[in-house]
Amino acid sequence: MKVVVLVGGVGGARFLLGVKAALGMPAVGVTAGPGESPHRITALVNTGDDVWMHGLRICPDLDTCMYTLGGGIDSERGWGRAGESWTVKEELAAYGADPTWFGLGDRDIATHLVRSRMLRAGFPLSEVTAALCDRWQPGVTLLPASDDRVETHVAIDDPDSGERRAVHFQEWWVRHRASLPAHAIVAVGAEEAKPAPGVLDAIAEADVVLLAPSNPVVSVGTVLAVPGIRAALREGKAPVIGISPIIDGKPLRGMADACLTAIGVETSAQAVGRHYGSRTASADGLLDGWLVHTGDSADVPGVRVVSAPMLMTDVDATSAMVAEAFSLAGVSA
Amino acid sequence: MKVVVLVGGVGGARFLLGVKAALGMPAVGVTAGPGESPHRITALVNTGDDVWMHGLRICPDLDTCMYTLGGGIDSERGWGRAGESWTVKEELAAYGADPTWFGLGDRDIATHLVRSRMLRAGFPLSEVTAALCDRWQPGVTLLPASDDRVETHVAIDDPDSGERRAVHFQEWWVRHRASLPAHAIVAVGAEEAKPAPGVLDAIAEADVVLLAPSNPVVSVGTVLAVPGIRAALREGKAPVIGISPIIDGKPLRGMADACLTAIGVETSAQAVGRHYGSRTASADGLLDGWLVHTGDSADVPGVRVVSAPMLMTDVDATSAMVAEAFSLAGVSA
Repeated sequence: MKVVVLVGGVGGARFLLGVKAALGMPAVGVTAGPGESPHRITALVNTGDDVWMHGLRICPDLDTCMYTLGGGIDSERGWGRAGESWTVKEELAAYGADPTWFGLGDRDIATHLVRSRMLRAGFPLSEVTAALCDRWQPGVTLLPASDDRVETHVAIDDPDSGERRAVHFQEWWVRHRASLPAHAIVAVGAEEAKPAPGVLDAIAEADVVLLAPSNPVVSVGTVLAVPGIRAALREGKAPVIGISPIIDGKPLRGMADACLTAIGVETSAQAVGRHYGSRTASADGLLDGWLVHTGDSADVPGVRVVSAPMLMTDVDATSAMVAEAFSLAGVSA
Repeated sequence: MKVVVLVGGVGGARFLLGVKAALGMPAVGVTAGPGESPHRITALVNTGDDVWMHGLRICPDLDTCMYTLGGGIDSERGWGRAGESWTVKEELAAYGADPTWFGLGDRDIATHLVRSRMLRAGFPLSEVTAALCDRWQPGVTLLPASDDRVETHVAIDDPDSGERRAVHFQEWWVRHRASLPAHAIVAVGAEEAKPAPGVLDAIAEADVVLLAPSNPVVSVGTVLAVPGIRAALREGKAPVIGISPIIDGKPLRGMADACLTAIGVETSAQAVGRHYGSRTASADGLLDGWLVHTGDSADVPGVRVVSAPMLMTDVDATSAMVAEAFSLAGVSA
């Protein structure tokens, strides 16, 4: 079976563990040898969080997926490397090098060094990602949504000057913990971006497409902002099933409500389902099915809604969610 | 008193500790407040060892001087940071990122990140160095000989293919421990290089110029390879005193003999003195005085030669060497 998943970072990476498990693959790493899985999973990964810092290109969502699926993640924290140390970060601070508020670990920095060097040598991000995955063997093809620079910026009122200005998503999200109201959220560069090589083919060949319970605005939304991806999903043969990241009116993880508020969408499973919209009943909608958590309900015209446990408490629970999604899509591994 | 010193890395840095001590300054750090030293030391630092690795600009000699004079050096090893860790290096190796043979410590990497970012933003190396020294307060003005890229390359017979090829100095020196015969040593880029801002002024204003007992070919020699520096030394008012890096026919440190052999100079105090030459008696010579170690002798036409203890065993011994050089130059602090 060919599965395409649109994902962000921590939640998306955990969801991918469940997709692998649901297909009988080991959650971490790959099955080697004769028993190798006949299934193929392609993750279209958000690049809107990507940023240059200290001369390094940092791709938080790609790395979170790569480390999680490759067994290198700090699973407590959900991002960055297990057994991480922070020597370089402390030294950068001793030089007064900005920014100091971003968690740049020593092990992680090696990834950024390899990537930055390859990017500067002219390799596109998709090839760089493949090279890094050579080491991590995530068992999933991780594709950046685009090789072009697409970065999420957020309009805030500067806490010092009071003036409205645009800051990189990371500054809003990590530095200010999304506590400053976002007046607008823009995927800068998206209009001129093209899907990375392999993205449209993966969608065309997919048996099912899943929207992970990632942030609908700055994760899945930014993947969808790359021209051509939404149309390919709408026109593809594969059913598209979304999993609600909103449970009982609260985001599954992180501060998705702050993002939804910024784009005028209520923080509810129904509102997010309607935001994605129906592939058949709305002009630019995506969904054939919408999975919400037990106890939640949603009325999304033209979309089949099913409720089931949607908490990614562990790989088994996540695998069961994915099985529900496959069932809703009418496919089976 | 205004002192200019031409230096390389480890030996040069230790020599500068002695210059500071001879002028009554604390060897490490700066004298602050009302008692601040009336003396000014400017080091013209070799950049021929500089190299891009893993997308980072590494300036070994500038950093060795900065860390040594700023109290951050690993004084056992002579280079790199005290209390260093090697996490990033191990991770780079896990990615198979070349080269793996260069000692790139975590603390050190922060320096390279700050420098590389500033260089890419368009700042010249001299300004970058000043910014880094803001933290380290070396008490000496560290000037790269040139802001232009001047890199030492070495012609060797490739140990695998047997073919002659040029490698970066670091590959010859660190990877091969200078064990492959050098057929030529070239300061690539030197012909088009200009002295960094401040270099010619420092020479013109100097009361005395010292050639540290650094490598005469790839350290002091590369500083002198920048057009304009040799002429400024020859035409300046300051006496030029060299300190022999060769003691009893052996290099004080490192593998200077391999470099001298490559340029056809014998490994002796006399031969190196003659290689530098006399400011008055030869067409492009530099020296007014030449200091050799007790027991060594040298006949360098047109140059006053004095022998005295020339082992930099500690700061006091080095300070005494510098006092000998001042005395030979006829200047006093």
